[in-house]
This record gives sequence, structure tokens and C-alpha cells, in this order.
Amino acid sequence: MTDTRVAGGATTTRRRETTRRRLLDAAAQVFAEVGLDAASVEAICDRAGFTRGAFYSNFETKDQLFLELAGEVALERVEAVRRRIAELDHEGGFADLPANAFAIVQDVLDVSADDRLSVLLMSEIRIHAMRNPELAAAYLAQDEEMRRAIARIIDDIGQTKKVRFRLPSDQVARLMLTVWEGATVRSAMAGLDYEAMCRRTNEELARVAQLLIDA
Amino acid sequence: MTDTRVAGGATTTRRRETTRRRLLDAAAQVFAEVGLDAASVEAICDRAGFTRGAFYSNFETKDQLFLELAGEVALERVEAVRRRIAELDHEGGFADLPANAFAIVQDVLDVSADDRLSVLLMSEIRIHAMRNPELAAAYLAQDEEMRRAIARIIDDIGQTKKVRFRLPSDQVARLMLTVWEGATVRSAMAGLDYEAMCRRTNEELARVAQLLIDA
Repeated sequence: MTDTRVAGGATTTRRRETTRRRLLDAAAQVFAEVGLDAASVEAICDRAGFTRGAFYSNFETKDQLFLELAGEVALERVEAVRRRIAELDHEGGFADLPANAFAIVQDVLDVSADDRLSVLLMSEIRIHAMRNPELAAAYLAQDEEMRRAIARIIDDIGQTKKVRFRLPSDQVARLMLTVWEGATVRSAMAGLDYEAMCRRTNEELARVAQLLIDA
Repeated sequence: MTDTRVAGGATTTRRRETTRRRLLDAAAQVFAEVGLDAASVEAICDRAGFTRGAFYSNFETKDQLFLELAGEVALERVEAVRRRIAELDHEGGFADLPANAFAIVQDVLDVSADDRLSVLLMSEIRIHAMRNPELAAAYLAQDEEMRRAIARIIDDIGQTKKVRFRLPSDQVARLMLTVWEGATVRSAMAGLDYEAMCRRTNEELARVAQLLIDA
């Protein structure tokens, strides 16, 4: 009896998680497509294939879901960079890097080379963060963590490859992230597809990387 | 009689222009505050002190007003840079520049150092441009013109001050504009006031300017 109940509870929890997941994924699409304000709870439920009842048993409001989604997106971006760093360590660390040390930074940023939907969603998060202090704090904290993760890679490259940079690593990281963001937004605006967006972003990153290396 | 009619016509035209202007200014504030989608025609009319009738005798829809406003903002930014260049020419051109040639680029960009409301409005324009090809074309054309205006300044500085840059002038301009945009958005998010926003933006611009000058 106890086992069955535990199993039943686990199933309920799993089903609940699946519902939440599908609602979050559907909402991410709808927010990216039409923006937070124009996105109705109905549209999100339609996309996810659930009723409004399912929505409100998981989220208090559309804004609460958006905040949760913003936190998730932030976490995913930082973790993608962390995973890539762990992979590199496993592959022999930064000692085995190619001569052009910055290829690695590009490579790391490349994992989070967002597609059009992600660029739209991040832009949506940024603009609402400008009007919502709670969201701004969450966004700036994620931005800071990304900057630190990239700065650590820059430091490692500097030490193992004896490369000298013309700015401190935190400023190198800031500039790389700014260029990456600007390039993806302009690419999305120009209607570029995913590959063209990555190509343009990488070109702009390579250019600024070259600038940052002390010859 | 004819004179009176002409005068009457001119007054009507002027009154109409004043109404349009006040509606556009009110809309810019409301869009910046709550975003395009959440901004109602009522809220815009309330802010401007007009009825919905006045709104609809001037604009077909809220979106049409937004498009017009976006075009205006774009034009204003480019013209602010053009005016600043003309002023500099009048003051003796680029020959009288300070030793740090980039102070001038900062100075030029400084005229369009947007306040919080402008940063919000530009962000609103960018995010809608990502979803609206007509707006995207207008935004990218303005962005391109700004880039060219800055690139011309860079070229002039290079020639008159014998300064060498580590990237072609159009890429120098692109990077300066990207850094400027990133810094203002992050400043607005951090809730900085106008002066602090200008200070931070200028610090970031000075840093990248130093990087761009060939020692």
C-alpha cells in the first residue's frame, strides 16, 4: 500500500512538472512572438494544449510565469557556459587551445548563440526589466554571473597561452557580451536565419577579439 | 476675404500640428512607460488632454502613430549628430581637437545620450522591429545612417589628427554604437539617473576608444 501511494505521488508530481514545463515552453514561444503584454493566458493555454484551470493551478498570474521563465532562461545561459568550460577542462583544459586563443571564447559564447526566439525572449525580458525592479535585479545578477564566467575563461587563456589582453578580463568579458548581444539583436531584426545569425555574431566577436589581444 | 481665409487656414493647420505634436509626445511617454501593447489610446489621449476624436482625426491606429514616432526618433538622433558635426566645423573643424581625439567622438555621441525615457522608447522600437519587417527596415536604415555619420567623424579625426585606428572606420563606428547602446540599456535597468547614465556610458566609450587607437 505504502509503495503504491508513493508511486502514485511520484506520478502526480511528474505529471504536474510536465504540465508546468509545457506551459512554460508554450509561454516562451508566445511571449517571443507577440510580447508579454499582448500574450493572453488563453493563447498560452491553447499553445500548450491545456485549459485555463491547468494554468491557474500552476501559476498565479501571467507575470509570475514570466518572472519564473526569465529566471530559467538566465540560469540556462550561465549553465551552458559552465558546461562548456567543464567540457574544455575534460578535453585537456586551455593548454590545448589553438593558436588563436580567442577561438575558444567564441566557441564558449557559441553554445549560447541564441536562435531568433531566444533573442526575442531575452529582449522582452530586458525591456520589462527596465520597468520592473525585481526583474531588473534578476537580469543584472545573471548578466554579472555570465560576465564573471567569461572573465574566468579569459584569465585562464591569458595564463596558459601567455596571451596578454589590452583590458582587464572583466572588461574584456563585458565587451564580448555587449557585442554578442548587439549582433544577435540586429541579426534578428534583419530576419537572418539561425546559421546566418551565428555567422554574423561570430564575425563581430572575432573582430573585437583581435582588437583585445595585445600584439 | 482671401487673406482672412488664408490666415484662418494657416491657424487651422498650426492648431492641427500642435494637436499631432502633443499626441506624439504623450504617446512617446506612455509607450516608454508601459510599452506599446499595454498603452491604450485612452491613456495617450488623457496624457495629451485630448478626446479620442482628436486622436482618430490625426492617426488611423495606435500602430500608425508608433511607426511615425519611431521614424521621428530615428531622424532626431541622426540630426543631433549632424548638428554637432556642423558645430564642430564652425568651431574650426577637427584640427582644433584635444590630444585625445576620441573625446570628440564621445562628445558627438553625448548629444544623443538618451535619458531613461528615450532608452525605453528605443528599446520598445527595437523589440517591435524584430517582429515587424516595416519597422525593422526603418530602424536598420536609421542605424546605418548613424553608423555612417560616426564613421565620417572617425575618418576626419584620422586625417586631421594623424591618428591610426586598429579597425576600419565603419567598424569603429559600429563598435562605438553597440557599446553606447549596451551601456545605456544596462544603466536604465540599474535605475541610474540621467547624469549617472551619461557618466557610465562615457566611461565605457572612453575605454573602447582607447582600445581602438593604434599606439
